[in-house]
Amino acid sequence: MRFSGVAAGIKDTSLDLGLVFFEQPTSFAAVYTRNKVKAAHILYNRKKVKGLVRALLVNSGCANACTGTEGVSDLEVIAKALASKLRIKEDEILFASTGVIGRRMPVQKIVGAIPDLVRNLKEKNIEQFARAIMTTDTYPKLVQAYVSGAGGGAIAGVAKGAGMINPLFATMLSFLFTECAVSQESLKKLVPAMARESYERITVDGDTSTNDTVMVFAPRKAATVTDFASFKEKLLGLMRELALLIVRDGEGATKVVHITIQGAQRREIAERLARRISVSPLVKTAFFGCDPNWGRIMAAAGDADVPIRPEKVEIVLQGETLVRGGVEVPFSEPHLKRLMDKKEVELLVDLHDGKASYDIYTTDLTFDYVKINASYRT
Amino acid sequence: MRFSGVAAGIKDTSLDLGLVFFEQPTSFAAVYTRNKVKAAHILYNRKKVKGLVRALLVNSGCANACTGTEGVSDLEVIAKALASKLRIKEDEILFASTGVIGRRMPVQKIVGAIPDLVRNLKEKNIEQFARAIMTTDTYPKLVQAYVSGAGGGAIAGVAKGAGMINPLFATMLSFLFTECAVSQESLKKLVPAMARESYERITVDGDTSTNDTVMVFAPRKAATVTDFASFKEKLLGLMRELALLIVRDGEGATKVVHITIQGAQRREIAERLARRISVSPLVKTAFFGCDPNWGRIMAAAGDADVPIRPEKVEIVLQGETLVRGGVEVPFSEPHLKRLMDKKEVELLVDLHDGKASYDIYTTDLTFDYVKINASYRT
Repeated sequence: MRFSGVAAGIKDTSLDLGLVFFEQPTSFAAVYTRNKVKAAHILYNRKKVKGLVRALLVNSGCANACTGTEGVSDLEVIAKALASKLRIKEDEILFASTGVIGRRMPVQKIVGAIPDLVRNLKEKNIEQFARAIMTTDTYPKLVQAYVSGAGGGAIAGVAKGAGMINPLFATMLSFLFTECAVSQESLKKLVPAMARESYERITVDGDTSTNDTVMVFAPRKAATVTDFASFKEKLLGLMRELALLIVRDGEGATKVVHITIQGAQRREIAERLARRISVSPLVKTAFFGCDPNWGRIMAAAGDADVPIRPEKVEIVLQGETLVRGGVEVPFSEPHLKRLMDKKEVELLVDLHDGKASYDIYTTDLTFDYVKINASYRT
Repeated sequence: MRFSGVAAGIKDTSLDLGLVFFEQPTSFAAVYTRNKVKAAHILYNRKKVKGLVRALLVNSGCANACTGTEGVSDLEVIAKALASKLRIKEDEILFASTGVIGRRMPVQKIVGAIPDLVRNLKEKNIEQFARAIMTTDTYPKLVQAYVSGAGGGAIAGVAKGAGMINPLFATMLSFLFTECAVSQESLKKLVPAMARESYERITVDGDTSTNDTVMVFAPRKAATVTDFASFKEKLLGLMRELALLIVRDGEGATKVVHITIQGAQRREIAERLARRISVSPLVKTAFFGCDPNWGRIMAAAGDADVPIRPEKVEIVLQGETLVRGGVEVPFSEPHLKRLMDKKEVELLVDLHDGKASYDIYTTDLTFDYVKINASYRT
């Protein structure tokens, strides 16, 4: 497969249009946002693309969401031009978009950029592609792994994230390209479950976008991958790496907080608590200030609408126990502040009420988050 | 009734302990937080205070939450000292606390302040009381109204708010003192419903505190208030005024956004949408930046987990239509920015899908919110 990225003038003078071309018809599986307002590329892909695919066109700078039926017909125009240039069928092209909601796609600019985009297609241009899909990301997100044995090969993954990130599912685009021979049916079974264990375990601001898209591509070969277990492990590993790259590059974030809830009666309880704590502005600002303000963690836990027994709760921050049996264990505040002044912080909440657990990654809430988002469009 | 406020040294050198003394046994109704983690004063009041009351002791600086059984027994010690000084019974005293979670009450300081506190009791000292319950509030919140006719009289209300404010219910303490003759039974019926129409219609950060408390007090008189309709109207009016004072003084807020959802099939749908939009950090930072970024409003609406038809949605900001039929109506961005640069902003989302509506008040998310909350304890 070959990659390309060009500056089509959709946002400014930076790369904003990326193309992937598959020499052979390729299997894929996609997971899209659960937001009820879905971008045009999701509506288009679901309606038009039924079988194997040959190309993926991704743009940044324009989300093509809330653009009505015109948003979808704009893609039809682009698909026609691209199909003709690549000599493939229109229903073999997948789209994805990210950027500002509500603006129409600059169809002429995109169609005009297709010749350059196609001319530029090269195996090694995957980083260029990764750069073309960035918005407020501060670095391109690119990972790789290798599955050995018959039907094996490389897996490469790219992603963009930064803001409007919330699990269920993370705001982002992420694409994984594998040389391993896996059927479309296997992919469609695997990918949603893997997304739950990777992209859905991160949050930046609790906002779920209209455009979230994960796609995994695999070629059709004579022999299927022999080491399927290794393939699954590597693919999930890359998805987790990409998810972590996204949360680490969260808008304005100075740190990533890994929140683990354990000792819950049921996994759903642990998940709800983890999600509730992970989006609390008061918890997130306290992490920014390196303030071991565990009361806010307890308050968020109590507000998660699940049964908890406050008198059993234990809270451990960076390995130091702050709370046992629901009340404070004396600790040195300056010592804790120093422990919290790290890029990665571990928070454990043990309910001592069962055996289920759940974990999630979140960011702190900072001046820069406000700055970036108070003036994103201008 | 008489009021008092002193500086007991619970937080710093400012007023932090307030007392209300009722000459006669007084009816009351209370509504407490729905947070599963409840402050000691809530546990105490519910357990100990069964009948009429004679006193209310409120402190700021210490939430007395997550303090275990000791948090409640601390209040028992204080109740004993206060009851003895006021010559009333211990079960005639109600408590409320606000401040940092997890710290024990400084019982000796509070008991030591009781003589001064009682000596200082005066009818006119209600503002002093209102000041004693403040935390990050920038001004005391005090309102008044009058109900005429037999059994009528004044109603005065005080409140504190500022942060950890979310409906269901707003983080805050609020007390209403009426001279009107209303039975305990009537109060207990009225107050929760009125709280839903006032304090539960505001949000600052989506965080619900462990301490939220609303109490309404009324004397027992021979004759009940003749103009009960006027009493209800005035009481609800004051609750709404206090709720608005709280949201206007929200931590770091530069503006209040009044969000109205209309045209919903059911009121619950309208309420969920209003609540979801009101806590979105991306919507709130856009309001701070005076950015008419309606895409974030649509995205938040789509993420509210209720059925909506994006293609019917209309969005009106400060009287200007930005979206009709789910797509943008051309508008002048500089003009909209000027319209949004106000202390009060009106956002209307019409679903054109039914007749139900709901409205809520929220704040913008600002640098100062982050500043206040990254360093609250230090």
